[in-house]
Amino acid sequence: MLFGSIEAGGTKFVCAVGNEDYQVKERCVIPTTNPQETISRVINYLKQFDVAAISVASFGPIEIKKTAPNYGYITTTPKKGWANTDIVGMIKAAIKVPIFFTTDVNGSAYGEYVMSRLSNEDISALVYYTIGTGVGGGAIIDGKVLGGIGHPEMGHVLVKRHPADSNFSGICPYHRDCLEGLVSGPTFAKRLGKKGEDVPLTDPVWAILSYYVAQAALQATLILRPDKIVFGGGVVSELFLEKVRQEFAQLLNDYVQVPDLTQYITMPAIAENGSATVGNFALAKRLLRSFD
Amino acid sequence: MLFGSIEAGGTKFVCAVGNEDYQVKERCVIPTTNPQETISRVINYLKQFDVAAISVASFGPIEIKKTAPNYGYITTTPKKGWANTDIVGMIKAAIKVPIFFTTDVNGSAYGEYVMSRLSNEDISALVYYTIGTGVGGGAIIDGKVLGGIGHPEMGHVLVKRHPADSNFSGICPYHRDCLEGLVSGPTFAKRLGKKGEDVPLTDPVWAILSYYVAQAALQATLILRPDKIVFGGGVVSELFLEKVRQEFAQLLNDYVQVPDLTQYITMPAIAENGSATVGNFALAKRLLRSFD
Repeated sequence: MLFGSIEAGGTKFVCAVGNEDYQVKERCVIPTTNPQETISRVINYLKQFDVAAISVASFGPIEIKKTAPNYGYITTTPKKGWANTDIVGMIKAAIKVPIFFTTDVNGSAYGEYVMSRLSNEDISALVYYTIGTGVGGGAIIDGKVLGGIGHPEMGHVLVKRHPADSNFSGICPYHRDCLEGLVSGPTFAKRLGKKGEDVPLTDPVWAILSYYVAQAALQATLILRPDKIVFGGGVVSELFLEKVRQEFAQLLNDYVQVPDLTQYITMPAIAENGSATVGNFALAKRLLRSFD
Repeated sequence: MLFGSIEAGGTKFVCAVGNEDYQVKERCVIPTTNPQETISRVINYLKQFDVAAISVASFGPIEIKKTAPNYGYITTTPKKGWANTDIVGMIKAAIKVPIFFTTDVNGSAYGEYVMSRLSNEDISALVYYTIGTGVGGGAIIDGKVLGGIGHPEMGHVLVKRHPADSNFSGICPYHRDCLEGLVSGPTFAKRLGKKGEDVPLTDPVWAILSYYVAQAALQATLILRPDKIVFGGGVVSELFLEKVRQEFAQLLNDYVQVPDLTQYITMPAIAENGSATVGNFALAKRLLRSFD
């Protein structure tokens, strides 16, 4: 049995077809232009295969409440041309299979959750943050995607300023002090006038960023008590996470027990940004099993 | 069918017996002295009734992971004489019925969740904070108590200082800037030399407290997206929550949709600190239904 994965991003759509063991059989990258063109290409690609179900992990904000009139839409995104796009509806009209719909980070979170369990780790709750052009987070608890009246927006949590960063205005138009506004990729250009990949890990800015990311890990720890917090996205590296672990340990101050920090705060187990693809395969498979 | 409720607090144990409609039939308040004496009195009280199951909502920290060797214990509490108390084991040895075990705030959260649903509110996720001598929080999501490797410790989340409060040292021995250390009942004595009930709502300290409590509500909102956040405990009043709502609205800045704030950030629906009792009845009933 085959499943379709659509990872809908602001610069590209990564489509893939996989089997019940979550192995990628086919893969295709489609640049994000306008919704009509992009989604048509996605449909034409996936139509070639006899997929039993599809999962879409999309940039947002998206409407995931099934009772909402605009369920399945990308809603108020600032991305030009994409606000109020009925992405699920467009795909469903062309490919008559069940479609699961979630955020990009939830897809990645699910992939990492599934991979942990396949590796026989004793994981019941996992949080996934992406720190790249944007910042977001999702969580899987007992196999379910976390979210009440909507999907989490963990990228916009308030953080306390690092003393050496008090004058930086941040780059989030909504919040002066939120995580995304202070640690996303574009903050390097705003702070230092160069790209993140050109800023060595010895630069003091990484201490500032690790303080903020550690605060996000602290919030997730105290509210959700997960078994693992995975950080993906272009800003993240193992050396950076080592700084995050140090800041995190200071902030937590052993107040609650957490696993060994090298196991607790980690890079994705699935290589090459493949977490969301695996997550989508697993979510599509699960959808089929529980089809209502 | 009758159910037993034990709300284990640092100053008193509130025991109650209720029916399947969560109505209190009998109630008894036992002062918290030492574990032997207190728990014996609890057992002797509950033994009078033919309860089918019991739920214990306890002060903490407690061990709730069933696979842990000290499951059912109050663990590292600073309360004198109570560290490493096998509260569930002691009750189970005397009363042979299934016992559910959770934190005091989880019990209250469950009570408020159940009451919301009985009132036909469309609630799938609810957060409950208590702000009193201590500060804690719990959440119910789709009928399940939230918690991965342990119960949440939402009282110890890091908050950003109010500009007018930068010199206050806080009263948490673990964290200089956590919610409990900055807003719990005893902070009034430390800041102002008097008790909270003697500090009028016009005092500027309430603006400081509402800023911190709003940050906790913001964290819960962005991470969990609940339908409702309930605040109980001695520090909370409707006038105080109105200040919290104002601060919260400014911090969120309409980034995600939440219900009308008077419905979203609320006092408990169950009067006279009865949330945990109702929650315990419901948890005991559920335990029996799903008895493994």
